[in-house]
Amino acid sequence: MTIQLEGNLEKLRASAPLVHNITNFVVMNFTANALLAVGASPVMAHAVEEVEDMVSIAGALVINIGTLSARWVEAMKLAMWKAAELGKPIILDPVGAGATPYRNRVLTELLETAPPTIIRGNGSEILALAGASIQTKGVDSTADSVDSIGAAQALSARFGSVVSVSGAVDVIVHGSRTGWVSNGVPLMTKVTGMGCSASAIAGAFAAICGDPFEAAVSAAATMGVCGELAYRNAKLPGSFQIAFLDKLAEVSPAHLAELCKIKFE
Amino acid sequence: MTIQLEGNLEKLRASAPLVHNITNFVVMNFTANALLAVGASPVMAHAVEEVEDMVSIAGALVINIGTLSARWVEAMKLAMWKAAELGKPIILDPVGAGATPYRNRVLTELLETAPPTIIRGNGSEILALAGASIQTKGVDSTADSVDSIGAAQALSARFGSVVSVSGAVDVIVHGSRTGWVSNGVPLMTKVTGMGCSASAIAGAFAAICGDPFEAAVSAAATMGVCGELAYRNAKLPGSFQIAFLDKLAEVSPAHLAELCKIKFE
Amino acid sequence: MTIQLEGNLEKLRASAPLVHNITNFVVMNFTANALLAVGASPVMAHAVEEVEDMVSIAGALVINIGTLSARWVEAMKLAMWKAAELGKPIILDPVGAGATPYRNRVLTELLETAPPTIIRGNGSEILALAGASIQTKGVDSTADSVDSIGAAQALSARFGSVVSVSGAVDVIVHGSRTGWVSNGVPLMTKVTGMGCSASAIAGAFAAICGDPFEAAVSAAATMGVCGELAYRNAKLPGSFQIAFLDKLAEVSPAHLAELCKIKFE
Repeated sequence: MTIQLEGNLEKLRASAPLVHNITNFVVMNFTANALLAVGASPVMAHAVEEVEDMVSIAGALVINIGTLSARWVEAMKLAMWKAAELGKPIILDPVGAGATPYRNRVLTELLETAPPTIIRGNGSEILALAGASIQTKGVDSTADSVDSIGAAQALSARFGSVVSVSGAVDVIVHGSRTGWVSNGVPLMTKVTGMGCSASAIAGAFAAICGDPFEAAVSAAATMGVCGELAYRNAKLPGSFQIAFLDKLAEVSPAHLAELCKIKFE
Repeated sequence: MTIQLEGNLEKLRASAPLVHNITNFVVMNFTANALLAVGASPVMAHAVEEVEDMVSIAGALVINIGTLSARWVEAMKLAMWKAAELGKPIILDPVGAGATPYRNRVLTELLETAPPTIIRGNGSEILALAGASIQTKGVDSTADSVDSIGAAQALSARFGSVVSVSGAVDVIVHGSRTGWVSNGVPLMTKVTGMGCSASAIAGAFAAICGDPFEAAVSAAATMGVCGELAYRNAKLPGSFQIAFLDKLAEVSPAHLAELCKIKFE
Repeated sequence: MTIQLEGNLEKLRASAPLVHNITNFVVMNFTANALLAVGASPVMAHAVEEVEDMVSIAGALVINIGTLSARWVEAMKLAMWKAAELGKPIILDPVGAGATPYRNRVLTELLETAPPTIIRGNGSEILALAGASIQTKGVDSTADSVDSIGAAQALSARFGSVVSVSGAVDVIVHGSRTGWVSNGVPLMTKVTGMGCSASAIAGAFAAICGDPFEAAVSAAATMGVCGELAYRNAKLPGSFQIAFLDKLAEVSPAHLAELCKIKFE
């Protein structure tokens, strides 16, 4: 199995898909800049009065519960329902799943509203989402991505979703397919919103790529390669964050081909 | 016709006007940093319980609908009404005008609440605001600023506002006056919040400058020149964003005089 | 009197305390990155449905009223009440105290809900909070930290709190103890969220340090030393902000020992 990683990046940049984000306050700026840098067009909108209209003109919907509240959850549901109706890809980022009962309850409701095309989280979040009794420490992972493969497979089977688990190795699961992306650097965990940006960029790829598994792998590889490229110039989190945005804009299909470390089984 | 561009920048820095922003979540941090860098004093406040008091101590009010919702719109109206009562400049940034019916409806309500002193948007937004039947792609422009001059003139005539249209060339219209600012670089469209910062900085100039047309031109020129200065050091969006903030702080009146490309007709 | 500044930084990094922030929209990203950089684990959560659960798993609670509104105040009270019940440190940052009657009213309510472990603000805010009739200019200080010592002492006596006043010299008061931290650079006032990060980092130290006075002094010293280190590389606000995050990650206990200028009386 191979994926059209280089072609997908070119296609993303050529079509500049509109990605509708209902996401958290902490990462909105970084996420918008990451989407712009990689070549997509971000929009953030959460009013219940407009989310259905916004998702109608978007290429993908990204739902991120990082700083959720009741009114926002209502908007998320409306947007997800509309995206499902229109057949647009839905990316769900279950930030902090397992940290509080409210987050778990909301996630159950969102999963009942519409099955996500892609679920992207860290190991703890994927374990929590799959119903494992795990206590997440806030929004940072305490579990390894590889330990979450069973949970990812269970989620994928239940919802038909691609499940992308970020970690030292990113593991992407869809039914019987599994992809392993071994790019990235540990410093990425010291910049807030890296995972959220991975979800948003998965949305950008899903908007232009018919196969959501391929979209999720392309996003993970692009993030990881840009992390490695950024780390060549910046070893500390402030300057790394900036270098990472630079690399998202600068990375070429040839870079991806040269540097990505993807395995399938 | 000439404007006191250099004197306005000196005056802004000497008086450090308080600029009250009711703006969107994506750009709040960047906007606050841009205002601080150029020499103004930002405050963000959106509670209906306090916006009237906050605008009373501010030098200008900046309204930006990027991530609007019902309760925020209520606060925007209260603040605009109070600013109008006190004769303080109101800057309206119609982010994503034309993208959804809700945005259009809210903009109509805001324009009925109080005529803005300055309306600043991209070409698509100004066309949408003027009632042209245009479908905006999220929050990015699909129309050239120069194609929006008729719409800008119509808006200016209807509301008495200065209308500032950002683009490769910024066009500023007030009644029979038109200014053209040909500064800036394309990379500015790859950093989120550049337009929003242009609106906020227009607020800072309007707070210290009796003529809102001159304030809008000064803001457009300062933004554009700082974009050019930043681009000398930074060709990629992450580092460009940071260099731009640096240049807002560093730019001297002499820089502006030397680099600004303004025409009037 | 001495404090275990170096040991506290090592302890913070070894235990990576979870710091629960209910803070303002402007600074959320910078605050989260500052906490990550220094070695803590940030979480932002404001839903009334979950703040009590979140504070239960956190090491400290940071309340910041920068962009307050009614529903958020409700959540702040629930979280403070729970933190007090569980004996977890509460840090209150009274952003813009004195700017509007609403802020003053809310602060009175918050102080009645639970006495903060640490109150950290600028001179104007501490004066306003202590009931001095002062009109704050938005969120920037118009008063010197040293002029606020009386107000800080009064607040400390009334609520039993450590009161940390940021300024050219940071003054930390707890009952009869006073600490003076003379680190930092003026450029720190040109980056939004520096004060808010100081409060968040005080939360991180309070989570791992039994004595809140020592936690507040450690936070002020760490902020100031990192400001000085950043200023060696970056003299303008955009790049300074990034360099500051880098230095929070890079600063060693030895750096602190060498550079911190702390006096007690």
